Amino acid sequence: MTSEKSSSRTFATRFLVCMAAMLLILAAGCAPKGPLPGQRIAGAPVADLLELSQDPRDYVSNDASTSLGSERQHELYEKYLTRFFGPWRMTKSAHTAREALWGLERYGSQPGYGENTLRRGPEFMDELRRESRPEAFPSEARRAITLRNTSMRVLPTNRPYFEDFDKAGEGFPFDYFQNTAVWVGTPVFISHVSASKAWLYAETAFASGWVPAEDVAFVSDSFVDEYQTGDYAALVEDDVPVTDPGGRYVFTAHVGAVFPRFGHEDAASAGGYDVMVPVADTEGNAVIKMARLKPTDAVVMPLTFTSRNMAEVARVMVGREYGWGGLYEDRDCSSLLKDLFTPFGVWLPRNSRQQSKVGVATELKDLDREAKKERIIAEGLPFRSLLHMPGHIMLYLGEREGEPIVLHAVWGLRTKSEEGAEGRKIIGRAAITTTSPGMELELVQRSGYDLLTRIDIMNDPLARRAPKTEQDATAGKDGQ
Amino acid sequence: MTSEKSSSRTFATRFLVCMAAMLLILAAGCAPKGPLPGQRIAGAPVADLLELSQDPRDYVSNDASTSLGSERQHELYEKYLTRFFGPWRMTKSAHTAREALWGLERYGSQPGYGENTLRRGPEFMDELRRESRPEAFPSEARRAITLRNTSMRVLPTNRPYFEDFDKAGEGFPFDYFQNTAVWVGTPVFISHVSASKAWLYAETAFASGWVPAEDVAFVSDSFVDEYQTGDYAALVEDDVPVTDPGGRYVFTAHVGAVFPRFGHEDAASAGGYDVMVPVADTEGNAVIKMARLKPTDAVVMPLTFTSRNMAEVARVMVGREYGWGGLYEDRDCSSLLKDLFTPFGVWLPRNSRQQSKVGVATELKDLDREAKKERIIAEGLPFRSLLHMPGHIMLYLGEREGEPIVLHAVWGLRTKSEEGAEGRKIIGRAAITTTSPGMELELVQRSGYDLLTRIDIMNDPLARRAPKTEQDATAGKDGQ
Repeated sequence: MTSEKSSSRTFATRFLVCMAAMLLILAAGCAPKGPLPGQRIAGAPVADLLELSQDPRDYVSNDASTSLGSERQHELYEKYLTRFFGPWRMTKSAHTAREALWGLERYGSQPGYGENTLRRGPEFMDELRRESRPEAFPSEARRAITLRNTSMRVLPTNRPYFEDFDKAGEGFPFDYFQNTAVWVGTPVFISHVSASKAWLYAETAFASGWVPAEDVAFVSDSFVDEYQTGDYAALVEDDVPVTDPGGRYVFTAHVGAVFPRFGHEDAASAGGYDVMVPVADTEGNAVIKMARLKPTDAVVMPLTFTSRNMAEVARVMVGREYGWGGLYEDRDCSSLLKDLFTPFGVWLPRNSRQQSKVGVATELKDLDREAKKERIIAEGLPFRSLLHMPGHIMLYLGEREGEPIVLHAVWGLRTKSEEGAEGRKIIGRAAITTTSPGMELELVQRSGYDLLTRIDIMNDPLARRAPKTEQDATAGKDGQ
Repeated sequence: MTSEKSSSRTFATRFLVCMAAMLLILAAGCAPKGPLPGQRIAGAPVADLLELSQDPRDYVSNDASTSLGSERQHELYEKYLTRFFGPWRMTKSAHTAREALWGLERYGSQPGYGENTLRRGPEFMDELRRESRPEAFPSEARRAITLRNTSMRVLPTNRPYFEDFDKAGEGFPFDYFQNTAVWVGTPVFISHVSASKAWLYAETAFASGWVPAEDVAFVSDSFVDEYQTGDYAALVEDDVPVTDPGGRYVFTAHVGAVFPRFGHEDAASAGGYDVMVPVADTEGNAVIKMARLKPTDAVVMPLTFTSRNMAEVARVMVGREYGWGGLYEDRDCSSLLKDLFTPFGVWLPRNSRQQSKVGVATELKDLDREAKKERIIAEGLPFRSLLHMPGHIMLYLGEREGEPIVLHAVWGLRTKSEEGAEGRKIIGRAAITTTSPGMELELVQRSGYDLLTRIDIMNDPLARRAPKTEQDATAGKDGQ
């Protein structure tokens, strides 16, 4: 599982990139100039949100460039399943103690700000060091599955780690101990147990970190065999309550969740999809329960990759509040894209920089503003190409009145007051915008950046890296 | 169960009182004057925190006035158990739909501010109304028990309801949908189920509200019989990981949690206490598991009520971060006191105003500052008397250098800038202070209030309401 190899570094990287994003992209100027309160700019939405349709279906054209041959789609789907179930083929941690517990090093001497908004004392990190048992890593090697949507944490605590609330773009909701949400039904490999046993170190192909012990159950060999039916359903609605045949609530699932189907029903069955779901017995071991997903809540994987289908799935996500690291089961920029591609059986990594390296990438960094815009419009594949800038990533939806249109989960735009004070114009949701949202506002203009100028990479995550001659490869884009 | 009767009104009241507290006590002047950012005043702790020992044991004297006869203590303990297990004697909801779902009325037309710090649209409350099914209330009548520490919510959602982040004392962490933390092992009566079945309306003698379905399990008649052993252990440490005999983690427990003992071990057994704990089977029904609590983590109820024992229990709570409505499993002013009195088998309600009415109350409202101070010192029972002001409550610890000393969980002190801008000097923790903390700061002084001037009631929650002649009743205080 080479894909696991770098996932702790990945998260260190993700952290650094996100910090960079906060400081560089969303803040005007790198170093916060000490306490400069009041830089949260709320009020009316930016013009793009008012003027552009927020229904992704309105951006679907008859252009077939987004479509993918079924051969390529199944190739991608095989890769998806390999990654998804990868943790169950692991026999030991993919990390060193230092990689896995990088948070101890990163935050050890800076205990940050707590839920009471005040700076914490060193005893907070001392306790987390004790609870993490770095000297004993890895202390476990068991396969497990998540029983509900859970928060994967950098260190074994639910308490937040904020930076100074008085700094622009810091404080709530930017809890830096929040690594990612992990949806229910995710196979994981447990490589370590905390001192109290309340926290387990869980590894997946997209993230590694601490999860509450009560949110996972261990799986037996027979569970692993039975659960991998080879036929899977993916959610295409958010906030779906899943109940067992007796009508008892089991859990809530979101777009991005995947469950094994059983039996051989017609995919288009009006009755919905019979799936397996994990529940825990009284000893904390996973057992399989049956559940039925409504035909409107799920699809058989892989859903055919077309811009119309992408728009249908994206529709349920637009407008949803921004969720740093998946807090409140909301999405940030990269988890929005990861979840959006899942029903199509396309695996994306969990951070924006890694996502921009998938498939075939086009370097845009050295182009000036207008040339970049032209290039995106000329070569971008609607509902398929990703547009990356340091710390942020967006889905290209196509062109409107000469402007590239994007779908992205975005926290805010950098602002600068007349006096030079930095701030944020909060968007705080998954939105459809141009690549220059908020430029009608003097405060945003004055910050000197729009998103377009920061875009450095456009990539097609579905293209084969080495161009081939078959129809569905985006030959000719490699290396541009 | 007349005690349940008013608990939804109780929470409406609690809400209003807390709002009042935020606006009146902690803010200088009632109405926030619109966006006045930057009013969070952090920095160095107030002088009391630096100058007064934060170890409650340092305030224990040889004065025996706190002590209670064992007859009275067992009388109180019987009452405690009646309240604690009360939900299992219920057969129907204690509330009307309007009482239980008061949040719909209160917030229906004001959807508040979300996790992205922005004002929400009306669709948020529309969805909560649909999910709450007020027209179907009550739709259930089943006994259950909490499987882990859970958040009881005003409406069926984990999403927060903030007021305007730009107002002093608003925004994070003041999520007004957070009703209270409910500790693991709490008997509840389920009277209603949400539309998605993901939320259950749970009633206890101290609070009613929505809890996640996955955090409770239904109990059978035999579970109810078996679980009430008549002999109980109470936690006296926070963050205690509880494991089963096989060493598997079951849950984390805090001061305030109570579990049935079984067998007839010596209370002082070096091996600890064997207790029953609830876990769920795969159908969501509760089954009893055995667990052992370390002798240092728990006591046999009721712990003898003395100031020394109170100080020992209080010790683990001091310094802990303030937790609005029990967020992050922290405590606010009233939950601190409720949990502190639990090992002694003394039941306290969940809100400060109700707590001030327990036992025998002394009205202090009309006394001037000095007279009030004298009265508190002359008549207050250290580690036993409560000092109340609108929206806040504190435990009296005794006198130091002419000042009454109190233990309380406090968010912040009202401040006023030279320009008249209101703010908060954040304390944000359970602390030992005088009744005038922060008065060394001009910002606090200028606000024109100290806590002492706001104290209106002192009460002895252990005294019988009608004075009797036996030794342990605090005769003579009634009606003063």
